[in-house]
Amino acid sequence: MSRIVTLTTDFGRGDYDAGVLIGVILRLAPDAQVVDLSHDIERHNVLEAALLLERCTPYFPERTIHVAVVDPGVGTERRGLAARLGGQWFVGPDNGLLTLMRRAALSAGQEVEIIHLDRPEFWLSHVSHIFHGRDIFASVAGHLAAGVPFSQLGGPLEDPVLLDAPQVLPTAGGWQGAVMHVDAFGNLSTNLEAAHLQGSGSPLIRIRGRQIHGLVRTFGDGGPGELVALIDSVDRLSLCVVNGNAASTLGVKAGERVEVGFEQLP
Amino acid sequence: MSRIVTLTTDFGRGDYDAGVLIGVILRLAPDAQVVDLSHDIERHNVLEAALLLERCTPYFPERTIHVAVVDPGVGTERRGLAARLGGQWFVGPDNGLLTLMRRAALSAGQEVEIIHLDRPEFWLSHVSHIFHGRDIFASVAGHLAAGVPFSQLGGPLEDPVLLDAPQVLPTAGGWQGAVMHVDAFGNLSTNLEAAHLQGSGSPLIRIRGRQIHGLVRTFGDGGPGELVALIDSVDRLSLCVVNGNAASTLGVKAGERVEVGFEQLP
Amino acid sequence: MSRIVTLTTDFGRGDYDAGVLIGVILRLAPDAQVVDLSHDIERHNVLEAALLLERCTPYFPERTIHVAVVDPGVGTERRGLAARLGGQWFVGPDNGLLTLMRRAALSAGQEVEIIHLDRPEFWLSHVSHIFHGRDIFASVAGHLAAGVPFSQLGGPLEDPVLLDAPQVLPTAGGWQGAVMHVDAFGNLSTNLEAAHLQGSGSPLIRIRGRQIHGLVRTFGDGGPGELVALIDSVDRLSLCVVNGNAASTLGVKAGERVEVGFEQLP
Repeated sequence: MSRIVTLTTDFGRGDYDAGVLIGVILRLAPDAQVVDLSHDIERHNVLEAALLLERCTPYFPERTIHVAVVDPGVGTERRGLAARLGGQWFVGPDNGLLTLMRRAALSAGQEVEIIHLDRPEFWLSHVSHIFHGRDIFASVAGHLAAGVPFSQLGGPLEDPVLLDAPQVLPTAGGWQGAVMHVDAFGNLSTNLEAAHLQGSGSPLIRIRGRQIHGLVRTFGDGGPGELVALIDSVDRLSLCVVNGNAASTLGVKAGERVEVGFEQLP
Repeated sequence: MSRIVTLTTDFGRGDYDAGVLIGVILRLAPDAQVVDLSHDIERHNVLEAALLLERCTPYFPERTIHVAVVDPGVGTERRGLAARLGGQWFVGPDNGLLTLMRRAALSAGQEVEIIHLDRPEFWLSHVSHIFHGRDIFASVAGHLAAGVPFSQLGGPLEDPVLLDAPQVLPTAGGWQGAVMHVDAFGNLSTNLEAAHLQGSGSPLIRIRGRQIHGLVRTFGDGGPGELVALIDSVDRLSLCVVNGNAASTLGVKAGERVEVGFEQLP
Repeated sequence: MSRIVTLTTDFGRGDYDAGVLIGVILRLAPDAQVVDLSHDIERHNVLEAALLLERCTPYFPERTIHVAVVDPGVGTERRGLAARLGGQWFVGPDNGLLTLMRRAALSAGQEVEIIHLDRPEFWLSHVSHIFHGRDIFASVAGHLAAGVPFSQLGGPLEDPVLLDAPQVLPTAGGWQGAVMHVDAFGNLSTNLEAAHLQGSGSPLIRIRGRQIHGLVRTFGDGGPGELVALIDSVDRLSLCVVNGNAASTLGVKAGERVEVGFEQLP
């Protein structure tokens, strides 16, 4: 039973904590394959990690275990949880990390089951109050990868913490969404989907006092330095500066409001 | 059939696209082992990636699959390809990434076979026009790792795009080569081989108006701050500043001309 | 015999040498799983790597092979070695990298056996004088992972180079230790253990002219910007600035002296 375990953390690369997580998992499940999704989540940015999980996990096979450790509340009363979302699993703190994966699973009609990690027999024998990633989450993931049934890892948890993540709302003449992610090139990925760009006219996009008329098909369809809008690889509206950095040009970051309207072209 | 798949991209580490490639590959070939060669290729620097592939791939076992995604032409008419180079495979865009691997395979007398990735049954069902790395290349690599025969993945491609990569040329009294790669420490790796440093006299190396007389055996043979020349671990001429950064000291980057002559020592 | 091999180097991420190590290992042991502990050790910082190995390796399973390449002496007469430390193995240069792993194994009553890598039949056929990481250490690790008995890889080595790593010393009224590691967030991890903070009174910690009275349980127990002391996840004294960077605030780095005394609270 070769099982895949992914890691998503805010540890950064210069530190050794990611290696320790891998050690804990492989000690329990030596045949697991551990895959780094990202260790470069902005520190304590739960929403960024939730978004990454929403966008990456659909490409992984059934029975993949996703461990996320972005955990500003470690050492407080915040709970740990594991979730079955369709055919995959999530393990991490109960702070909203699974919000978007859960929303996607529910809207795809998949079954969602969440448990409270309340059984210390599946944790390391010494649990520190500052590194549950190692002592609880990696250990639980290791047991799961080694074949322990999900339902044995804890009792039911009915009220997971969920993020108030921006949703798309209707406006008078279109939609209001938000920048959800800024990638390494400064491109702005929004929560507006391709369908939101279909309306009575040509789309007119507004962000930070700037207007973009219509969509381009690829970067190559805009001139250098031009602010353009396109439908990205995950079928969402993305705003980019050709050969440049939209985030720094506009001075915006995740959370910035984006509005879509429609105009009649002459 | 546990198969190794390597990844070489310009995605950077802060982004999540590398994780998505891994997911696509493992969904098709759950027993594959995915290895990151580099996600830090300079954006759109096809030559840098070609060089990395030339230098790393000989150390990998037969049947390794190398996926490279440095793809400035995505969304245009540029083709995708896969290649069999001796006992290994390459999958990526047809933009010259395989130039140096192919040159090495041919000069080693290995068989080279290239196909056009023109069969959508081996791609993801929805192909975006901006992320063929995921939708085509990772998917094709996953099928190959899962045992689909190479020849089924596409029809023959006779005219792959090849880079005009610097080659070593003879001069009146020696050789003219070029800096091919600047490593993390600012050392300059050239395309001049150990054999080019053998001549009638002691080697005299010229770069950017500077002269280096003779070779040292290791860094330790030069004084701090001294510009030295040595034969590096891949049997090529490398120029270094001891305890310093040759690239920033000289103000040079990949492509810079390097000349080798010979002088009589008194 | 699926075997785990970890890598710890100072290569940085932008370079391709780590990929080459992986290739060499997998060519000899295709079923090995290679895990990156860190490629971000400060260049030539042997102590930092030794500390990472001490702290990470206990979490890995028996029979894990740890390869470390932080090797300022490559090309000189410095020897290569392999060690059996309890149930795990180490492979790397004889420059003190195993100092802390060895100290921990001995104080846990484990058997330690060290050999000199003096048998070229387990190296790559062409050994450069500047990249033993690839030509000797990765190759030896690959043979070990493939099942070659440890004792065949070399003859006994009785006098390994050991670092003069800071140890905790008693003072008139307490203990003197040192900062051993600065993490990505600027937190200062020391070699003082929880037991050193137990004394006749409340602990009083001194570093760089600053005093810290008592310990907090978690970051959350201090106000923003406050310098606090706590017992960290590896049971050691750690000094942190809440929501800040202790290393830059205090202007200290690894090696800085830390003193513990005790005071009577009114």
